[in-house]
Amino acid sequence: MTSKPVERVTVVGTGLIGTSVALAAARVGCVVTGWDADESTARRSAARGGFSTAGSLASSVAGADVVVIATPIETIPGLVVAALAADPEAIVTDAASVKSHVLTEVAMAAGSADLPRFVPGHPMGGSERSGPDHAAASVIDGIVWVLTPTATSDTALVARLEAWIERIGASPVRMAAERHDRLVAFVSHLPQVASTTLMSLAATEEADEPEILLLAAGGFRDLTRLAASNPALWSDILLANREAVAVAVDLYVARLRALRDEVLAGEAGRVEATFEMAKRARLRLATKPKVRAGVAVLQVVVPDRPGALAELTVALGEAGVNIEDLQIVHSPEGGRGTVHVTVAGEDADTAAEVLSGRDLDPTRLA
Amino acid sequence: MTSKPVERVTVVGTGLIGTSVALAAARVGCVVTGWDADESTARRSAARGGFSTAGSLASSVAGADVVVIATPIETIPGLVVAALAADPEAIVTDAASVKSHVLTEVAMAAGSADLPRFVPGHPMGGSERSGPDHAAASVIDGIVWVLTPTATSDTALVARLEAWIERIGASPVRMAAERHDRLVAFVSHLPQVASTTLMSLAATEEADEPEILLLAAGGFRDLTRLAASNPALWSDILLANREAVAVAVDLYVARLRALRDEVLAGEAGRVEATFEMAKRARLRLATKPKVRAGVAVLQVVVPDRPGALAELTVALGEAGVNIEDLQIVHSPEGGRGTVHVTVAGEDADTAAEVLSGRDLDPTRLA
Repeated sequence: MTSKPVERVTVVGTGLIGTSVALAAARVGCVVTGWDADESTARRSAARGGFSTAGSLASSVAGADVVVIATPIETIPGLVVAALAADPEAIVTDAASVKSHVLTEVAMAAGSADLPRFVPGHPMGGSERSGPDHAAASVIDGIVWVLTPTATSDTALVARLEAWIERIGASPVRMAAERHDRLVAFVSHLPQVASTTLMSLAATEEADEPEILLLAAGGFRDLTRLAASNPALWSDILLANREAVAVAVDLYVARLRALRDEVLAGEAGRVEATFEMAKRARLRLATKPKVRAGVAVLQVVVPDRPGALAELTVALGEAGVNIEDLQIVHSPEGGRGTVHVTVAGEDADTAAEVLSGRDLDPTRLA
Repeated sequence: MTSKPVERVTVVGTGLIGTSVALAAARVGCVVTGWDADESTARRSAARGGFSTAGSLASSVAGADVVVIATPIETIPGLVVAALAADPEAIVTDAASVKSHVLTEVAMAAGSADLPRFVPGHPMGGSERSGPDHAAASVIDGIVWVLTPTATSDTALVARLEAWIERIGASPVRMAAERHDRLVAFVSHLPQVASTTLMSLAATEEADEPEILLLAAGGFRDLTRLAASNPALWSDILLANREAVAVAVDLYVARLRALRDEVLAGEAGRVEATFEMAKRARLRLATKPKVRAGVAVLQVVVPDRPGALAELTVALGEAGVNIEDLQIVHSPEGGRGTVHVTVAGEDADTAAEVLSGRDLDPTRLA
């Protein structure tokens, strides 16, 4: 039916994701309008260029083909209903990281669940940071953009939205809202809970044992990096997905206790088997899906001084080797750094040769 | 009493740590002898240069001032006793990552707990990798080297060992064995258990939901990196520290359940308070203690192509800015990379200026 390409796009909520979507849409020639309840945010977002801001929600939405609501989760339901009312034809989607909760709230706010133009979504991009200043069209490039159409979402509109998502650079993936919420509980919400809890436990122990963090090396750092995320944002997300989060935590706790019991009982074989299984799974998990089939990790010891990393990255860049990932593994008190460099499998030999030639002495780990 | 500097050093077990200690000792002029029960390991270690290998344990130890036992944990007690017997004056230390267990076993193997020349230790260096091929003197630079003298350890010998540890580049820290074991249970063993358990849970869920890992972004990757560690090694470590590990897991589980209950009950304020506390603690935790007082983190978006990282690292190296840490934050499916660069606080303005001048558009995060 409506297979004409999307031309006019409105973004409501011009933070990191909203502004990035606006920039990505403007990049492919869409006429983009932005609106944010916070004037300073709207102004900083518009300063990024490529699109205009409107004076009111209603005027920003009027005439749009697609409206993307990218505000904090608790404000989304009301804005979805307002956007659906402000234009009689626009496709309205949102960016909430939890779907079932938003669906229920939208139906309540609209007084009906029959909303053919509402297609819930979740662009899975961005970092733990927020605000238009961190936005870029490239934030959208290659991200998974989940759509969770409802029973009443118009199929043709869903297809039109998907085509637009692909056009601005992301990968649309369709799934049921409940399934989305269950999956992100495991791979996004549970890791956040695990990280925050580990950091809060160590901080409490530190009160009695000031030396505890002196003994904390790279592994502890890796596991607690997420603990620096935005508290208010995460409180909202976890509460909106509370049942799925509780299930994920329960399963995690059950496994932790099982492993603890095996350790306490001295069952070396079972402990080792659990570690083997996890190790195999981790090695299957690539740094990026597009090179999942074959990556190589090279370990290189570099001195801890200005220019040391440059030597390594320049050597690889000159040889045409793309660095897929790079992780600095410091000793607890500095002095030298071990770097793990991930490259595509087909580049591994070239990379090793180049680094050996520079006395950087790489060791292939995977 | 014996305040003359250590001249002759013997390393028993020439894997990653043993060979690195040997190289660091040779670097400062010690005469070093290595021995390993595995001939291939001994040969590969000796090939690293700077020290010789002996034909037997007894002949390697005879005449040594200091003997470092750096073998797998279960073989350490027997080797400590053998080393003490092989030379009547040598200070014998070990590198086991769990102390109380080893102490008990040594006393049993020796038939006595009165061992004045035995000074247990734990050089907290190395990576999750093993073997002499990954060794380097620089592995020892700046690491925390814990010593846990027993009630019968000779005080003068402990001081002599400490002076030598400092001389080869590490930082000696003295504490009781029980305290060491309790602290590493929190900052080393628990993170490993948390990571392995998260990965094994996700892998199990993946059997039913192949798309689950497609939705896994950087946070999940950070938390599961440790899960690729050596299963047999970790099984031995956890079992040797089983009581302390069980206590740490119990406290972790209790906090996970408390947070889960708060989420399920919708107690937004309490959830947010937990996140606030953990966030503050994580921001206090520096990437490396020596710059704990002031680091700055710059976020830079770089294109995903060969040479992109080189541009950034060369620019900073040329400006004399040392990169304390660098973390690539990929979007789930690639296409671009956000890089978090950590520099000393005093270098932050220079770094930002240099990067802006190259259109790398940094954003200061911390």
